[in-house]
Order: sequence, then C-alpha cells, then structure tokens
Amino acid sequence: PDPDLAARVQHRLNRKTKPQGALGAIEALALRLALIQGHEAPRLHAPQLLVCAADHGLSRQGTSAYPREVTAQMVANMLQGGAAVSVLARQHGLALTVADCGVDAPPHPEATPMRVRAAGGTDDASLVPAMTEAEAQACLARGMAWLEGRPGNALLLGEMGIGNTASASLLMHALTGTPLVDCVGRGTGLDDAGLAHKRAVLARAVAANPGATAPGASPWAVAAAFGGFEILTLAGAALAAAAQRRVIVVDGFITTAAVALAEALCPGVRHACVAAHASAEAAHRAWLGHLGLAPLLQLDLRLGEGSGAALAWPLLPAACALLNEMASFDSAGVSERAA
Amino acid sequence: PDPDLAARVQHRLNRKTKPQGALGAIEALALRLALIQGHEAPRLHAPQLLVCAADHGLSRQGTSAYPREVTAQMVANMLQGGAAVSVLARQHGLALTVADCGVDAPPHPEATPMRVRAAGGTDDASLVPAMTEAEAQACLARGMAWLEGRPGNALLLGEMGIGNTASASLLMHALTGTPLVDCVGRGTGLDDAGLAHKRAVLARAVAANPGATAPGASPWAVAAAFGGFEILTLAGAALAAAAQRRVIVVDGFITTAAVALAEALCPGVRHACVAAHASAEAAHRAWLGHLGLAPLLQLDLRLGEGSGAALAWPLLPAACALLNEMASFDSAGVSERAA
Repeated sequence: PDPDLAARVQHRLNRKTKPQGALGAIEALALRLALIQGHEAPRLHAPQLLVCAADHGLSRQGTSAYPREVTAQMVANMLQGGAAVSVLARQHGLALTVADCGVDAPPHPEATPMRVRAAGGTDDASLVPAMTEAEAQACLARGMAWLEGRPGNALLLGEMGIGNTASASLLMHALTGTPLVDCVGRGTGLDDAGLAHKRAVLARAVAANPGATAPGASPWAVAAAFGGFEILTLAGAALAAAAQRRVIVVDGFITTAAVALAEALCPGVRHACVAAHASAEAAHRAWLGHLGLAPLLQLDLRLGEGSGAALAWPLLPAACALLNEMASFDSAGVSERAA
Repeated sequence: PDPDLAARVQHRLNRKTKPQGALGAIEALALRLALIQGHEAPRLHAPQLLVCAADHGLSRQGTSAYPREVTAQMVANMLQGGAAVSVLARQHGLALTVADCGVDAPPHPEATPMRVRAAGGTDDASLVPAMTEAEAQACLARGMAWLEGRPGNALLLGEMGIGNTASASLLMHALTGTPLVDCVGRGTGLDDAGLAHKRAVLARAVAANPGATAPGASPWAVAAAFGGFEILTLAGAALAAAAQRRVIVVDGFITTAAVALAEALCPGVRHACVAAHASAEAAHRAWLGHLGLAPLLQLDLRLGEGSGAALAWPLLPAACALLNEMASFDSAGVSERAA
C-alpha cells in the first residue's frame, strides 16, 4: 500500500459532503479499492466470477452431509443457470466461468476444462497427501493462466466441491496454527454426531501428513497434503489477479483458504482482497481476521459457490461511485461543522 | 401475514438446490417480500426513493454538530447530484424525489413542494410542541397523496434535516417507553460535551410536552410534540405504501421514527417494511428490534439521506431472483442429503 495515495484518498473522502466517516465501512472499502488499483479514482469493469469445482478423497470418509455425486450435479446446475450463483451472476452482470478442476465424473461439455488428473478427485488426505506437490503447482499454474487475457479488473471467487470445508479446515490449521477443533465447522449442515465424526477424520488427516504441520513446513507441502484441486486453482487465479492489481472478492470459508494459500506463497496477495461476507461457518471470521480482512456482509450465508461474493458485489461499484462522484463541501457550498 | 402463503414460500425455498437455510438472511428477505406482495413469486420494479427535508426548531438549541443552514444546502446538493444519495440513486436506478417539507430557507425551484407552513421549520420542542396536530395530519396527508399514482412497488425512505436525530430520539422515547438517555446518540458526530448538552435539551423537551409522554397519549399528540415535518411526511408515504402492498425500505434512525409513527397510527405498517441497515446511532438497533425488523447491513453507516436504503437495495431484487429463478432439487436432478 502506498501511504501517500492513502492520505490523498482519505482527504478526498473527508472533504465529501457528509460527516467524516459517516459512510462507515463503505469509506474503508473505497480507500481499499483505490489502493488496490493504485489510483485516486478507482473504477471497476467487466467483473469475472470464477467458480472452480473438484472432488475430494476425504469426502469418501463421510465428512459432508451431501453425497459425493452432488459436485458434478451442481456443476451441471450452474451451467444450466439454476444454481444460486448462476442467478446472482445474471442479476449483477458478472461473467461466470465454471471450471472443472477435478470433478469425479465425466467432464461436462460446457465446463471449462482445468483438470490436472484425467479422472477422479484428490486422494484421501486421512491416509496420504491429497495430491503431489507437482499437481499442486500445476493447479496453480492453470489458475494463473486462466486469468491471462481475461477482460476486466475484478475477480470474484467461487467454488463447488462436496467435502471442501474439510479441506479448508485442514489448510487453516496448517497455515495459521489455530487448534484443529477451532477450524472445523458444520459445513453444509452436519449434526452433532456428523461434526464429531468430521473432527475425528480431520485429526487422522493431520496425523497422516506430519510434514504439513511441522514447523516451517513449505506452503507447497501444506497445499499438497490438504488442498483441493479447486482451492489450488483459485489460489493461482488470485495470485495472478493480485499481480495485475485486479480486485479479488473473497466469498466464504473455502475461497478464504484459496487466498490464504496464495498469501502464504506470495505475501501481499491479501492486500488485493475484499472479503464479501462472514459466513455462518464459525472459523471463517477468525481466518479473515488472520488475513486482516473485514467482511462486508453478515447474513449467515453458508452456501459457497461464490454466492456471497456475488451478493456483496454491488457495494464495490457503489463505493467507487461515491468516491468519484460525490461533491465536496467546497464544490457544493455546504457549511462545515463548528470547529 | 398469510400463514398458508408463508408455508408455501418456505417450502419453495427449502426445495431450492442448496442446503436448507444456506442463504441465511436472504431467504428470510425473500419470504418477507413474498408476504408483503401476497404472492409466491415477488417481483420489484420502478423503486421510488423519497427524501423528505425539513428544519427543526430544536436545532436552535445547538443539538447538532452542523449549522442549521446545512439542510437547505444539502437539498441543493441532492438536486445537483452531488450528495451520497444522489450518487447511489443513479448507481442503482432509483427514482429520486427530494421534497421540501419545511426547510427554513426560500424554496429550491427543483425540490418537490410539500410544505405545510409557508416558511420556517418546526417550533422549538424544548419550549412548545413542534407543531399542531392539524399540521401533523396535513404532513401525513401530503406524504400519502405523494405516493398516489407513483409507479413501481417499492418505496425507499430518506431524509435530511439538521437536528432530526433529536426529534427521532424524542419520538422513540414517547412511542416505546425506552428511557430517554438510551434514545439519544451522537447524531452526525457530537463529542461528549455535545452529547451531554443534547440530552439536557431533550429532557427539557420531554418536560415541556407532558401530554406526549402521558400514559395512553395519542400518536397524534406524540407526533405534534416531537415530530419533524419530514418525519411525518415520510410516515404518510409509508402508511400509503403499506396499504398498497408496496415494499418499504427503511434507512436509518430517522426513517425508523417515521415508520414507527406510521405503525402507531395504523398497526401493521411494520409488516411492509424491510430494514436496510443498523446504523452507528446506538438506539437504532434497539428500535428496529421493537418493530420486529432485522437489519440487512451492518456497515456503521450514520449518514441518513436514504443512503443506507440505497446501498442495501440490490439485495432485494437479488432475493426475488433467487426465489424465482433457482432450480429445485427435482428440476435440476441434484441429490439430497442423507436423511
């Protein structure tokens, strides 16, 4: 972040015809967008919403309330326009890409092919690393390459993958050092017994991958042990977006895992991020705090797909418009408060 | 509210391709919009944003951080397109009306004339009632008449009036019985000394208008004692909107006063309301709770003007689109969770 630019933008915000700070978090958002773009008058255009889908070996252990085949079914639903993220992308003019990063089913003809394995999801992390480091790097590269040449200057992140809150919990534990129990939640809706089972499976995954939680473990080791193909691909897209000064809109717990991995690989990515919301997944808010991200919405969302990013999206162009179009006390001839 | 309709809409929401309740407060919003419109498939069109402006006799007592002439200056700024609400109305396609309900300045040629007094704001409520009951009724009638024949099926409420948080605090005290001290906040940004002064002035206003806080006081007596012309006019527009099954989007503390008065006059108005946000004005959240309204946004906004209503607006058509356009488990062929 550029302190001179920050001071100039803050001064502009303070001279707008409103009490200082009266637009609350929207003023902080406008400042953040200006700093990401490196420009006093940030503008957003042609936002891209990338939904990465993949399956997880861990889901064979029954860590999700939903069966594994739902990943492929929801990819089809997204492409047919019936998923929440499809509806919201239409509603808000977001260009939607649904990428198959490793769905355990025959490829959907309309999904963007981004697999690093010909078939199947990740391996079962409760037994072995979810993937090799080479595969993790290949996912990252695919995500980065996808962004190349895409129009626009904003990237919204979304995901689909039965069992991927389990993967994200393991990544949070390994990357932040938060006790595992505090990283694990109910995902799409586990009951108490289901939650206890999920915690036990994840403890086995930690034990099965000692190198990933050893002091000084490399982010690649963490990614290979616990990652999902969709999470790594999103991390690659986020990494490229940050390098290109695109605004990254983070959705829920799983896309937070993606930007946290990108941040671990390339410190500074988080400065290009805007957190759309704090989800109902309990650990999500804590992880956002670790990354220094303040969520815009608090609506008890727990769907993923990028639905929260899409719901929050209109706040971003609104913040730009306020910064760029509001009159100042001087230009409007409005009296200021008594000193 | 129609319990059969509520059950049908809830069933539709539960059959959508997402875990039950995974869209959190957006599902509750979709249900509410359906109940307001009396229709399983709510749709919104041609939203009207009514900003009512007026001056307050109380502001002569120094209850605001800003000088009294700012009301007229901000009316001009809104009409010139430089105020926050002007920017947001353009951004989100809201038809903006700026009404002069009693600004203490020569009428602005482009403001919609809705004065009940030829000149001046309300009387000083710390000495006498702010207005007569006949004037309160005339304001209400003007607000109701304004809505007649307006297109669309949604009304967003906004206001401008230096000193009007003081008026709203008095109304909250009289209408809810909340101790006065808990109804009074910093408004546009009072310091500790300013806040103490405001509380003392408002205590004098309560003492000067004993009939307004007597047991069983009529809403008209409350409105006349403590009201602002802009608050009463908004109450009228809200009352008419509820009768016509239009959705009312409440902004901050002052527009909450307007719908609370409308509710006191005509119980049920609150069921037509959606609370856009919980403002930084401390008493606002409590008052929303009294009215059974759950705020959508929590962004520390404290500007008024309708800016919070305008910022929250996109969530409403998004909620409708999700209810109307998402696929169901059956139509999309998506597997459900294990029983």
